[in-house]
Amino acid sequence: MKIALLLTGNELMNGDIVDSNSAEMAQMLFEIGLSIDCKVTVGDDRYALLAYMQHLSREHDVLIINGGLGPTSDDLTAEILAQAAGLSIVEHPEARAHLEMWCERRGVELSAANLKQAMLPMGCDIVPNGKGSAVGFSLTLNNCLVITTPGVPSELRIMMREEILPRLSRHAKQGILFDKLMTFGLGESRIQQMITEQIADWPEQIELGFRAGMPLLEVKLRSQQQPDLHSEYKRRLTDLLGDHVVAEGNARLPDILVNLLKSRGETITCAESCTGGRIAADITSVAGSSAVFGAGFVTYSNAMKQHMLGVHPETLQSHGAVSQAVVTEMVNGALSLSGATWGVAVSGIAGPEGGSEDKPVGTVWVAWGKQGAIKTQHMRLRNDRAGFQRMVAAIAQDLIRRELLGIEGEVSYFARYK
Amino acid sequence: MKIALLLTGNELMNGDIVDSNSAEMAQMLFEIGLSIDCKVTVGDDRYALLAYMQHLSREHDVLIINGGLGPTSDDLTAEILAQAAGLSIVEHPEARAHLEMWCERRGVELSAANLKQAMLPMGCDIVPNGKGSAVGFSLTLNNCLVITTPGVPSELRIMMREEILPRLSRHAKQGILFDKLMTFGLGESRIQQMITEQIADWPEQIELGFRAGMPLLEVKLRSQQQPDLHSEYKRRLTDLLGDHVVAEGNARLPDILVNLLKSRGETITCAESCTGGRIAADITSVAGSSAVFGAGFVTYSNAMKQHMLGVHPETLQSHGAVSQAVVTEMVNGALSLSGATWGVAVSGIAGPEGGSEDKPVGTVWVAWGKQGAIKTQHMRLRNDRAGFQRMVAAIAQDLIRRELLGIEGEVSYFARYK
Repeated sequence: MKIALLLTGNELMNGDIVDSNSAEMAQMLFEIGLSIDCKVTVGDDRYALLAYMQHLSREHDVLIINGGLGPTSDDLTAEILAQAAGLSIVEHPEARAHLEMWCERRGVELSAANLKQAMLPMGCDIVPNGKGSAVGFSLTLNNCLVITTPGVPSELRIMMREEILPRLSRHAKQGILFDKLMTFGLGESRIQQMITEQIADWPEQIELGFRAGMPLLEVKLRSQQQPDLHSEYKRRLTDLLGDHVVAEGNARLPDILVNLLKSRGETITCAESCTGGRIAADITSVAGSSAVFGAGFVTYSNAMKQHMLGVHPETLQSHGAVSQAVVTEMVNGALSLSGATWGVAVSGIAGPEGGSEDKPVGTVWVAWGKQGAIKTQHMRLRNDRAGFQRMVAAIAQDLIRRELLGIEGEVSYFARYK
Repeated sequence: MKIALLLTGNELMNGDIVDSNSAEMAQMLFEIGLSIDCKVTVGDDRYALLAYMQHLSREHDVLIINGGLGPTSDDLTAEILAQAAGLSIVEHPEARAHLEMWCERRGVELSAANLKQAMLPMGCDIVPNGKGSAVGFSLTLNNCLVITTPGVPSELRIMMREEILPRLSRHAKQGILFDKLMTFGLGESRIQQMITEQIADWPEQIELGFRAGMPLLEVKLRSQQQPDLHSEYKRRLTDLLGDHVVAEGNARLPDILVNLLKSRGETITCAESCTGGRIAADITSVAGSSAVFGAGFVTYSNAMKQHMLGVHPETLQSHGAVSQAVVTEMVNGALSLSGATWGVAVSGIAGPEGGSEDKPVGTVWVAWGKQGAIKTQHMRLRNDRAGFQRMVAAIAQDLIRRELLGIEGEVSYFARYK
């Protein structure tokens, strides 16, 4: 089945917004074994819309049109698609009923502008919108199934999940198996090399994909009608990646960490130098994180490492701020002051300035653990300043995750594969 | 001049990456008065590439192809474009020289895979790549100027600025004037309504555009060959937006704040509850921020507001954590402990849980100022949890910016326009 996408909207052409809808649609379709062959984007332009509706419907089995269903005069999808199909535009009773209900729920009057959203090509089928005012619709043009969808991402997402994927999956390849492993600490090329060397017989029926979710890396497996083979290689891959797999399916490190701590009734604190508050911000991005997080210490200067956390001036003097001794004293200070079960401290050189031959930009020391049982590790990352800060914050969270799960041994985060 | 874009790469079709290149190219072209009429994306597929090279070159004056210039076998741009133009593929001496220099600088051998990047359609013109190994090239196909560019964003950016915009600007509209105001605190619809009501004679020759940069909103002005009119209305718009304009051209709030503080030799600290470290993380995202930032306090729990910052238990008891009294004690505690010149403290309800009738989700109190001169403000935002945290961190920075610039008066951030 050949699928095309036609995206419409001046905001997509002039660079005012970045199109994330098409990537999300492609991922959803991928999970049921479908892929998009071609994607065309045009502005709110009658001529271009008409030309590409005709062209794409002739070349594909399914055409999904995204955008242009709103109430304003530059929303042209219904009008131009009717013209392409030689149909007149009429008020669609189902669409009108949807609009009336939508307005009633919001306590607003049904306006003339809104009513335009019920004016659809005669005889089309409605594709319900579970969230917004604009219903989608479908019709056949040049033997191609054309489906229109709203441009608002949250409305599109619901319509794809609830309406469009179920319809298309009837035509999709049967028996698609899909799995996604969220991993941390290995780069894509390293994973690929590990597979080449250690699962040399990787079967070509099992498609392997990667997606950099920063900081996590998604590893995706897709195959068709071979459940035994699929689960065998999923198991072998999971074994190979080992404790670098942080979850199956969608997940974020802070959510995993907060849930682990919650389930144990434990708490965490952090003492941050080079990450400047990002570890605390990551943890508190999780709703309900107050159950596990009471305080974080951002000690960017040496003076504040001393005054807030009790790091000794001599330790700073003899070892420097980026050192095993200093991060150890930082985490101990944070643990004492906060009373948290677990603590993590980081100190490093985010760059672009501040590096030396001894401690180049990208150097970082991490200390983590419980009072009286502190571990430390030293790394060198090769990201730019923003990437370094984000990655160090993630590494800090991953080290605690490993500790909570009782995973032993030092991890060489993002080390080059030899 | 009609411009089309052809983007290529399987990673763009399967949703593994979101295309940000085309939005950036559109913004760059906009500044010299050009726009993209149509954009087509296909995978690494010979048939689709050939078909759309032919189709788009027939319908447009300029076709920019992005991607497919790399060294691997799925990089097909040169080969298929040569086929479309009926040219043979030959080693291009200029491209080879570039590759040799590129390898020499990195101390690596020129491999056979790399050499493929010098195999280009006979007689094409080289478009230098100031950064990466893949040069671009241009040729004429169906009377259309076809220019190929690398998919790596940083390489594309340099090639656009240094090579392609200068070439195209010869054909661009003459005398394009472009300005960008970075604003904070007003929504797009509010600004539009302010203009409608207060600059009712806005001339249609001056094109107005908006781009949500979260948290900043870009307001863009573009006109042609009317410098007097352009500067008059730029001035009127700047006056209308007043102290909501934080900068002209590209800028971020943390950079503005750090620069202002640096120029005065002053420092800042923050005490964060609902933002959980995000204010500190924003400030320390700026390289060299250690000159103005020594410490931040993340006091998420009431106990830590007391123990770290010296907030009185009675204050928490009688006013609650989200109150004028508590943020005032928080900022005073942070100022005393850090010795910083300026301080800011925030406490609010990020949601989705934790709201009450009295203090619904989105309520936030901010206190800021110098020791002995603390101001406070209360707001209610309507963002989701992530948006709330990001926006409150930005508001905290904007309030200090206003203070440093001596801007008087309370701001009603993102209030609906009446």
